[in-house]
Amino acid sequence: MRKTIFPESVDSLWLDTNLATMAESGAYGRIASGAVAVTAGRIVWIGAQSALPDDAPQRAARVHRLDGAWLTPGMIDCHTHLIYAGNRAREFEMRLNGATYAQIAEAGGGIVSTVTAVRKASEDALYRYSAKRLMAMQAEGVTTVEVKSGYGLDTASELKMLRVARRLEETLPTTVVATFLGAHALPPEYKGRPDAYVDLVVDEMLPEVAAEGLARAVDVFCETIAFTTEQTERIFKAARQHQLAVKLHAEQLSDSKGAILAARYGALSADHLEYLEPDGASALAASGTVAVLLPGAFYFLNETRKPPVALLRRNGVPMALSTDCNPGTSPTTSPLLMMNMACVNFGLTPVEALAGFTVNAARALKIDDRQGSLEVGKSADFAVWEIDEPAELAYRMGGNPCRMTVKDGVVVHRAV
Amino acid sequence: MRKTIFPESVDSLWLDTNLATMAESGAYGRIASGAVAVTAGRIVWIGAQSALPDDAPQRAARVHRLDGAWLTPGMIDCHTHLIYAGNRAREFEMRLNGATYAQIAEAGGGIVSTVTAVRKASEDALYRYSAKRLMAMQAEGVTTVEVKSGYGLDTASELKMLRVARRLEETLPTTVVATFLGAHALPPEYKGRPDAYVDLVVDEMLPEVAAEGLARAVDVFCETIAFTTEQTERIFKAARQHQLAVKLHAEQLSDSKGAILAARYGALSADHLEYLEPDGASALAASGTVAVLLPGAFYFLNETRKPPVALLRRNGVPMALSTDCNPGTSPTTSPLLMMNMACVNFGLTPVEALAGFTVNAARALKIDDRQGSLEVGKSADFAVWEIDEPAELAYRMGGNPCRMTVKDGVVVHRAV
Ligand SMILES: [Zn+2]
Ligand SMILES: [Zn+2]
Repeated sequence: MRKTIFPESVDSLWLDTNLATMAESGAYGRIASGAVAVTAGRIVWIGAQSALPDDAPQRAARVHRLDGAWLTPGMIDCHTHLIYAGNRAREFEMRLNGATYAQIAEAGGGIVSTVTAVRKASEDALYRYSAKRLMAMQAEGVTTVEVKSGYGLDTASELKMLRVARRLEETLPTTVVATFLGAHALPPEYKGRPDAYVDLVVDEMLPEVAAEGLARAVDVFCETIAFTTEQTERIFKAARQHQLAVKLHAEQLSDSKGAILAARYGALSADHLEYLEPDGASALAASGTVAVLLPGAFYFLNETRKPPVALLRRNGVPMALSTDCNPGTSPTTSPLLMMNMACVNFGLTPVEALAGFTVNAARALKIDDRQGSLEVGKSADFAVWEIDEPAELAYRMGGNPCRMTVKDGVVVHRAV
Repeated sequence: MRKTIFPESVDSLWLDTNLATMAESGAYGRIASGAVAVTAGRIVWIGAQSALPDDAPQRAARVHRLDGAWLTPGMIDCHTHLIYAGNRAREFEMRLNGATYAQIAEAGGGIVSTVTAVRKASEDALYRYSAKRLMAMQAEGVTTVEVKSGYGLDTASELKMLRVARRLEETLPTTVVATFLGAHALPPEYKGRPDAYVDLVVDEMLPEVAAEGLARAVDVFCETIAFTTEQTERIFKAARQHQLAVKLHAEQLSDSKGAILAARYGALSADHLEYLEPDGASALAASGTVAVLLPGAFYFLNETRKPPVALLRRNGVPMALSTDCNPGTSPTTSPLLMMNMACVNFGLTPVEALAGFTVNAARALKIDDRQGSLEVGKSADFAVWEIDEPAELAYRMGGNPCRMTVKDGVVVHRAV
């Protein structure tokens, strides 16, 4: 860590805390009895409290004493579908009561039910439902969230979802990074005509999204049950024309070689990856693409094939984690539970799990120049935890020891 | 449901709510737009709001309007080890970093580390740690909790744990049902002399526990790695002499025929049961013993053998669920997460999952005469939920939609 002179005056000083800076690869970057100083929403000093000048508290407009709580970077949830209407609890119940997929579809279940609910919902209603989930995340230390479109599946409804994303960003103290996922599923009205739907995505939706500046990246669900690699590539090419980054839902249910394609287009991330093979892992490594693992969907779908964590480690592919928050396969707003599941079910270490929601999640969104770790110059996005050591974040199942969430140096959530 | 005249005056009236009474077997016992009236901590009227006399609100000293939230019986967590000191996050981390069990034991890990921490902790400290966990449960709708001793493993420390249980019951607005589990594990100082330790349990601990009235039941960990069925039976006989009920940790890692033994002694419950065979299931059915399933430990230990849910259903054995809250194999205070895991991993239906934390949990503690369902004459122990339908309680992973917890008619927790 580079040495910094403590400034003559700072906006806030955070004392009596233990820091997990996440600024060193493969480690917490612990600073026991640490301190952080913030000015204009950015970290201007960080280090051991003993290294502070004696009059540091007098130089701070505000002093926060944390009584030994742990302070980590704010949590970054880099893959969510949190903008939706309705829920699929009834479908969950039908399935457990023995209903077949056909019966569930007949009763209006499945992704179509969410698409119908989203199309019907007003922008205001959609905003309200989504803000509630975003605030649940914020209460668990989340300071940045990626959100995808993909339940509209017609131009107007996809744009509506992305406008809700923009409104979340404008109204709540959370960074919201929007991704256009028009190619999430084939809408019912295009049944049997997937290429015609891809035409719509490429020729109409994507240009409008780009023109309105509503998304930073374009995502595709590349899978046997969704879009082929050929269709995916058409969309990636269009994204490139519009100077939008790409990312991909890849290798969740089969090895479609999506990761290789994603790497070829310099994708920010390839997500899911249960069926990733060695060729895909080396491709991701070569392109610097982040592997985003989604343990919630794996668990909720009772999958048995785990993502190849050892292979990813061997290839040096950075691993991020995310809630995948969505009503069909991962109804959760809890990063901590995902960290626990990543450790218990995928064998990640607690350090890897925390990196997955901080420094590597920032890389998956290409915001690692300003977020994801506690370093001078980066945003003062913090989560403050009532724990004795950082491994506790991944060790507990359920529950939420977050004492406060801090965005750009401002306390935006405080536990009672 | 029996018809009741609405009284001339009541302490409180709960309106604009949807009720899941759990008073019918195998169903939520839904009452849409329901109402409940409470006097002296008990339900005195329950039914459809439309059936209330017009002046019912005027007859109530206090009216609570719940804006359509769902109201269920308070959650009953019928198998916990929540009284402990320390945590085992470091051990969890060592294991994920590749440490062997021998290395963990050498570093002071395993159950011995918890026993050491509990023996060292003052009664005050132990109370503080445990109260924190109990309050986390209360925030998730819990109104009754069973707690076991079993980390003291010497007479003084076992009594200390049970006194903490009594103090929790006396100081917090939660029913605390204490169970003596002296035979949880063999303490290090009895290594190789399990029968001598059972002598201590039977001849010294149990009589003192009974004399002080510190426990309602006696539990044993009957397993290849713990106590044999013969040793268990000695303890059950002693329990009977002292007029204490029995329950058993049975068939978690092997079929030791513990359930059959438990049934023979009319046990309140047999808990875990992953390896239960048909003979055990019929024995439980015949004795009216409740099967307590513990999905947290199953998940956390990466077990693959599931409890035989279909067999239990076929035999009509009531199934309860519990957190098993403990630092080694189930570090959780979340009934809702256990409901989700019971559905996702064990295939329970959402109705069974809710029954598992209400009516069947009450049976496992033999308090079903006054708790576990919403019926006239029962305690006014409620959980109020921000959900659209009861299946949502089991559908979500993580998060906590509990708006308030009500004990004996009094609001004891309120979400912000
Ligand atoms: Zn997704
Ligand atoms: Zn137990």
